[in-house]
Parts: sequence; structure tokens; C-alpha cells
Amino acid sequence: MEYKTIAFDVMGSDKGIPPALEAACQVLNEFNDLKIIFVGNQEEIKKYLKKLKYDNDRVEFFNTTEIINMTDSILDFRRKKDSSMTKAIELVNEDKANAVVTGGATAPYIAACHFIIKEIQGVDRPAFMPVIPTIVSNKVTLLLDVGANLECTPKDLKTFAIMAGEYSKLINKIEKPLIGLLNVGEEKSKGLELHRETYKLLEDSERINFFGNIEPRYVTSGFVDVVVTDGYTGNIALKAAEGMAKNLLNEIKSSVTKNLFRKLAALRLRKAFKEVAAKFDYKNHAGALLIGLNKIAFKSHGSSDKRSFYATLKMTYNAIVNNVVIRLKEALLNE
Amino acid sequence: MEYKTIAFDVMGSDKGIPPALEAACQVLNEFNDLKIIFVGNQEEIKKYLKKLKYDNDRVEFFNTTEIINMTDSILDFRRKKDSSMTKAIELVNEDKANAVVTGGATAPYIAACHFIIKEIQGVDRPAFMPVIPTIVSNKVTLLLDVGANLECTPKDLKTFAIMAGEYSKLINKIEKPLIGLLNVGEEKSKGLELHRETYKLLEDSERINFFGNIEPRYVTSGFVDVVVTDGYTGNIALKAAEGMAKNLLNEIKSSVTKNLFRKLAALRLRKAFKEVAAKFDYKNHAGALLIGLNKIAFKSHGSSDKRSFYATLKMTYNAIVNNVVIRLKEALLNE
Repeated sequence: MEYKTIAFDVMGSDKGIPPALEAACQVLNEFNDLKIIFVGNQEEIKKYLKKLKYDNDRVEFFNTTEIINMTDSILDFRRKKDSSMTKAIELVNEDKANAVVTGGATAPYIAACHFIIKEIQGVDRPAFMPVIPTIVSNKVTLLLDVGANLECTPKDLKTFAIMAGEYSKLINKIEKPLIGLLNVGEEKSKGLELHRETYKLLEDSERINFFGNIEPRYVTSGFVDVVVTDGYTGNIALKAAEGMAKNLLNEIKSSVTKNLFRKLAALRLRKAFKEVAAKFDYKNHAGALLIGLNKIAFKSHGSSDKRSFYATLKMTYNAIVNNVVIRLKEALLNE
Repeated sequence: MEYKTIAFDVMGSDKGIPPALEAACQVLNEFNDLKIIFVGNQEEIKKYLKKLKYDNDRVEFFNTTEIINMTDSILDFRRKKDSSMTKAIELVNEDKANAVVTGGATAPYIAACHFIIKEIQGVDRPAFMPVIPTIVSNKVTLLLDVGANLECTPKDLKTFAIMAGEYSKLINKIEKPLIGLLNVGEEKSKGLELHRETYKLLEDSERINFFGNIEPRYVTSGFVDVVVTDGYTGNIALKAAEGMAKNLLNEIKSSVTKNLFRKLAALRLRKAFKEVAAKFDYKNHAGALLIGLNKIAFKSHGSSDKRSFYATLKMTYNAIVNNVVIRLKEALLNE
């Protein structure tokens, strides 16, 4: 049996090692051709693993002595040569693993992947691509870039469109993914020079099923399968939407539990609230692919719990099974 | 008695003339030193006004034959010389009114105000400034620019900060308004060149109580009184947040009314939901000032109902009473 191997940096995320290991064991038990290399403090990892059930034969360890923290700067992966993040990336770069996963600091991760793994030929920069839940049941939208590169060219955005479109086909099983360009208005003439030039490129490409411009208010409406944008704009839009959702849900929670009478009524709606929460729950879509690299590199939220890591590891396994990098390369060659 | 006079373009908004007139009569009945000039199709306006109660002596009419539609392009105010929007702006420019209000198309309105009224000396461009509700009770945040100018300079953003700070003092009664710079991260080094240069300018100004960078997720958290940004970024952030709020609230509504059992429980929480809705309700803050012009020009949402127009007219009256333009000029001179 050919194993799919994930190099898993279990250090550096906010909630410590336990949720990472628990998630890993759950995924290992689900897929019997999956191998995981736990990268980090071997002693701590082994100590906690004793409490968990998993197939011993499909687990390896790679001991490291350093950790990249959330406060480290982007080039600290070079200074901290024995960090779990750097080593996990090196393992996949040396083909000792098929993919790397971390819950550690985003900016150093992107920098380290860029310098160690490097981009697919023809890709000038990778993009950070989270999966956005939408109000349409079982439909998600891929949004990229959300911050790997603040400034992008029209050509970059076209490359993002091709790669994310291919990913959407492969992983989300969308036959002809519809691609939107994030912009302040719908008309072709709207936005900055970047948008007008990108619009032309996307419109002219026979390969791309172009929806046109899409306003940020419709990203969660499920109109399109992929939304392309520069990392600055994507980051602004994502954080604005996340902040609103969080503030609004907190307000609702505090309002419906304000007194006993309301609490009792709210209890009866528990299932209703859960349904909405499940639809918008980013934990089910916690993994963001750093797309455009020569290897598969996933990032799980820094505040990942077991469920988030589980979702990310599953997405990573799926990406390996579907030969994502090879398929992206083919798609880019055919354009 | 010295009257405060509003030139009110009652044409061109989505819901027609009635809500505009109803709101106007309500505000007229509230403030006995307020005069309103109804600009638009006189016949239609008078016909509907017959149904309403108001002080006849404080109402004037200015008949116009054209309407600027939502689909008109930004310079159509020149082509449609007898449009209600253009005429209402001219009335205030000729000092026949103290302020102009419209629910019509935004882009032509901004263009017409810019060309007819012109900016305060020292202001290179006006900014479109909506009032954003926050989760802190009775606290709002002014966000500017959200689209009058897609691209801005650091000097523009500093001017926005001074003007909005002064407005916040005058109208929101904040003694020392805290000003944030919208950015993808909190650290001084984050963002684009625009942010780094603006950061320095705001930090160095003795007049500005600078909070530092603020991420879009915290705009509705009530941390600051004013958030400055370029029109492109402000528009993206605003639309992303609005879209998320709308989709989330719709989902909750449809989930809690899915069956009779849930409907009954939801009825008991009606007040709780209303409290949240009231807090986030843009209709209570429907008016956006086009700040930086030589006159007071407010824009109400294109889909304004009576309540939205009422809120906008009240904000406009308040701005006249507080001599907003004169105070902004003084503030800019003192910098």
C-alpha cells in the first residue's frame, strides 16, 4: 500500500499540542493509508499520545527544539533552523512527506514555504486560499488571495483563477466552476486599474468560466465557486465579514440569554441556532491551502481546536489523494 | 426666527416619493425652526402632501422635470440640467437652503456636489462618511471614505481624520475622539505604503488622538470613534460586513421560523431579536455626510423608507444647527 504522508507541525498553535494530536488520531483511524509524521517536541508528543488510540505503524516522529511563535517575524524561520514549522516544510520538500500542515504563525509559514518549497513554474506567488461557507446548503466559495501577497498583478489574479478553478473541480466536484472578481461594483468599468485589466484577462480566457465582478456583500451568497482578489483586499473583506459575524452572534447570544424567560425560549431554539452556526462555522472549513507551491501546504487557524485540525487534516489528505499539485501544473500548462 | 432650511430631493430613490414626504412632515413637526424645500415633481408632491399634516408656512416647492436614476452615469447631472438632484444642490449652493438631502444615485450625487458646491479650501476631495453602529450601547463609529474616492493620499486621510474628529465632537459629543487607521494588521509596519505614511502623519499630529491601525473585524466593536481609510478599502469593508450581517440574519430568521414549534419559541424571543436588530439597524443611521464640501450634503440610502429618511433629515438638521461646515473649516485651519 502506498501511504499518504502528512508532516504535521503540532507546535506553535494557540491551544497547544493536545487538540492537534487528538485530531490526528481521529483522521488516522478514518483513513488506513494515511501516515502522519509528528514534528515537534518528541517527549511531550509521545507523552500525550499514550492517552490516545491509533495505529502505531502509521505514526512517525521528528524531534525539533524550537518553535515559531505568533509574534515572530516572517523571516524567523531562517533564524530558528530547528523549528517544528521549518522542519515540517523541509520534510515535504525532501519528499519524505506528501504535504505539510501547521497551526502556527501565518506570515512566517508563507515565507518559509515560498523560500523552501518554491512556486510551481509560471506561478509568481502563491495565494492563501480559505474556504468560505455560503448560505447555499453544502456550497462553499474559495476566496484567494487573503493575504499572502498584499499587492498582485492582473496576471497573478488570472493564475489564481485557473488554480482555484481546478481545485474546485477536483475537491469540491464542481464541473464548471464559476469565477468572480472581487470589486466595489458589478459593472466592468468599476474599481481600480487592477480590476479593469484583470476583468479583460478573465473575460478573454476560454478556460475560465467568468461571472464578472462580484461585490463583497455577495461572497457568502453562494453565487460563485471562486472569488479572486489581491491579498490586501481579500484580507480586508474576510476580516470585515468575520468581525461582523462574531459581533452579531455575540449580541444575539447575550440578548436571548438576558433573563430566565428568554433562556427558556432560547433552549427550544437550540437546534435552530445550531443549524445556522453549522452553516457558517469556519471550523468545518478551518484549513486554508497555500496554493501555487510545488507541494501541498495547508494552514489551520492559529486558534484551532480538535475539530478545526481534524477538518484541515482531512482536507490535506483529500488534496494528496487527488494529486492536487500535479493537476494544477497541468491546468496552468493548458492555459 | 432664523429658519434652518433643507433642500430635499424627494425623487430618484427606490421607494418613490411617499416615504420621503412622510419623513419630512415628521421632522417638520418635531423642529419648529425647520423649513423644507421639496424639490421634484410639484404636482405629485402636492398631491401626496394633502394626506399629511404639517405646518404649511415652513414648506416650499421647487418644481423640476427630470430625475437622475440609479443607472445614470456620474456626469449625467450635467446632461439632466433640470433634475431634482442638480437643482437641490444648486439651491444650497446659492444659499437658498442650508443643506441638501437626497436618496438618489450616489455616484452622480458625489460628482454633482464636487462640481457645484466644491470643497472647503485645503480639502482635495470630499469623503463619503456613513455612521456605523457598534456593539457598545449608544456608541457609533464614523467610517470614511467609503467610496467617494477610490484612491487617496496620506494627506487626504489626515484631512479626513481631522474633519471626522471634529464632527464626532460636535455631533456625537465625544470630547477627544479616538481615530483609527483601517489596515490588515495592527503593527505600524503593516499594510501598503499608503498605510505606513498615513500612520506617521496621524501619529505626529498633536491634534489627532491616534489609536493606531485597526483591523476591519473591530470596526463594529466600538474601540474607536472614527476609522479613516481610502474609498476603495472602505467600500470593500463596508459591503463585506453588510453582506455577512444580512446573510446571517436571513439564515437565523428562516431557521427559527422553520416549523410551528420553532415559530412559537421565536415569538417569545421577539423582543430579544428586536433589541439586536435595533443595535445594528442601519436605518437609525441611514444618512451619510459627504464631508469636506463648502455646504452640508447628506445622502440617504437609495432604498430608504420613512424611518431612514427621518433619520437622515434629523442628522441634517443637527448638522445645520451645529454649524458643521464652519467648524470643520476652523479645525482644518488650526492644524
